[in-house]
Amino acid sequence: MPADEFDTIRTLFAPLAGEGARGLIDDVGMLGDVIVTTDAIVEGVHFLPDDPIDTIAKKALRVNLSDIAAKGARPIGVLLTLIWPKHRDAAEIATFARGFGEDLRAYDVPLLGGDTTSTPGALTVSITAFGKPLGARAPSRADARAGEHVWVTGVIGDAWLGLRSLTAAPDIIGAIADARTDAHARLVRDAYRLPAPPMAFAEAIAKYASASMDVSDGLVIDAAKLAHASNVAIRIDAEAIPLSGAGHAYLEKRGYAGLADLITGGDDYQALFTAPPEARGVIMQAARESGTNVALIGDVSEGAGVRVIGAGGVEVPIANAGHSHKLGR
Amino acid sequence: MPADEFDTIRTLFAPLAGEGARGLIDDVGMLGDVIVTTDAIVEGVHFLPDDPIDTIAKKALRVNLSDIAAKGARPIGVLLTLIWPKHRDAAEIATFARGFGEDLRAYDVPLLGGDTTSTPGALTVSITAFGKPLGARAPSRADARAGEHVWVTGVIGDAWLGLRSLTAAPDIIGAIADARTDAHARLVRDAYRLPAPPMAFAEAIAKYASASMDVSDGLVIDAAKLAHASNVAIRIDAEAIPLSGAGHAYLEKRGYAGLADLITGGDDYQALFTAPPEARGVIMQAARESGTNVALIGDVSEGAGVRVIGAGGVEVPIANAGHSHKLGR
Repeated sequence: MPADEFDTIRTLFAPLAGEGARGLIDDVGMLGDVIVTTDAIVEGVHFLPDDPIDTIAKKALRVNLSDIAAKGARPIGVLLTLIWPKHRDAAEIATFARGFGEDLRAYDVPLLGGDTTSTPGALTVSITAFGKPLGARAPSRADARAGEHVWVTGVIGDAWLGLRSLTAAPDIIGAIADARTDAHARLVRDAYRLPAPPMAFAEAIAKYASASMDVSDGLVIDAAKLAHASNVAIRIDAEAIPLSGAGHAYLEKRGYAGLADLITGGDDYQALFTAPPEARGVIMQAARESGTNVALIGDVSEGAGVRVIGAGGVEVPIANAGHSHKLGR
Repeated sequence: MPADEFDTIRTLFAPLAGEGARGLIDDVGMLGDVIVTTDAIVEGVHFLPDDPIDTIAKKALRVNLSDIAAKGARPIGVLLTLIWPKHRDAAEIATFARGFGEDLRAYDVPLLGGDTTSTPGALTVSITAFGKPLGARAPSRADARAGEHVWVTGVIGDAWLGLRSLTAAPDIIGAIADARTDAHARLVRDAYRLPAPPMAFAEAIAKYASASMDVSDGLVIDAAKLAHASNVAIRIDAEAIPLSGAGHAYLEKRGYAGLADLITGGDDYQALFTAPPEARGVIMQAARESGTNVALIGDVSEGAGVRVIGAGGVEVPIANAGHSHKLGR
């Protein structure tokens, strides 16, 4: 699908949106004072057919929890819809359930119900998650104001490196991770299979964020969605984007073309948020106290669109703003 | 999958169930005082690849609304996850949205959000629906008591006839519907594609039902689930099962073997409930006032299992208690 397909979808479904749907432009809806969100992951789209089944279960949960955390909320329940291929060994379902259960306990979130069905097609896990806002409001995409800072949690690009290292030819793998260190390869594969949404930082987002959303389709396209919804421009400082050791190794080999890969690859499942400049100190303190990696990566101004600015003020060219695994958000 | 697979699934996921999940034995969960339910429909499993796309949208909604109605509740919102095949014409999405919108308006339920993604596999529509109980409680499957009556709304078996008439060879179609009347064929195909959940009767269910659930996998297997959850036996009077003209025509040709087809075929999306005998009069009055077809089909006793009793007290043999499109409920 073309990269702007999500606009088409939004145009089609937005007129159907009820009160609480935030016009379908946000990641979540509101049911009274409860946040509701739903995200499905599909074999061959969001995970690989030979990914371990327990990590598939955990990824399905975590991609939903990242929406809850990005809205400054605490998860209070999930529904699980498991759509199992007719020709896949049903014995694996036990391993799926075990992995899912481990994560439910780790994130302290109860399973409220669900559905299971067979499919002639791809393994699909659809989850609905409920969250209780930790503050008076749940920040939307549309709440950014000119003059604010732009922040992101975690590191960006490792999941894309992991996907590439799992699917690309061996000679490409050498360029992706530092071949001297298997640790890099393991780390980025884990990042792809097991995203780590910033749950511990949700309370700080509730307190200090103006606009907030999760980064799932790629930092640049998600920043563009936030900018569009808020009717502002966003400038991202290329040097400030948080990368892992593997990410830095890739950047050393590929330069800004490599950076463009990392910030458009998607599957990060971190939080992207804006906050007034005066909140800088308390945000950094909350990051330390919660053990969360939080980086100040840019700022908001009047205007439209997203620019990524490298050393010397040169704009980093972004050929493909985000990967198109989704028809829309 | 074997017919008892749903027990296996329940065993695997039940230990993960939180408070509000009703031990996963019910169709729905509770989030505070809000009913939450989720059901997915899959191409080639719950609908046919060449079913009109607007009826697929409506069916996805209605199979969820039947759970809400069966719990004596009013729908207050839905989330839509649309998983669209990569090779299916994206232009059809507009028709899907139009049909979905028509039904949202018809049932007066707001869209709160959702997710859209592509798939290399089958078209899949996963919906989460929220309901507000119209009474003090939402009847579960486990609330039937010996001595109560068993009731069902709507007619049973038309959806199965419709599926057969859409998929079977022409010589079989003659046996299914009365070949003299195209009206029968149209009616049963509509029943398969567009279930009509008993929304207008939800208030009566809230008032008078002890146990209640929707009939989706087949009258007999769903009655067996209700009996099992309530730890009771259910006797169904074969002559009392509500059939349409097409159903009666099929029964005339096939006898009790035909009846077994109709009551195990599934896809009815009606409500099956129990109530004390003294509620018989008010239930029949509520049926008239709400314009709902409601039939008294049997009774509850001590014991276990479901028996269907025909003329002269002969038990109707049921070879296959329910069709196995689901891995479980």
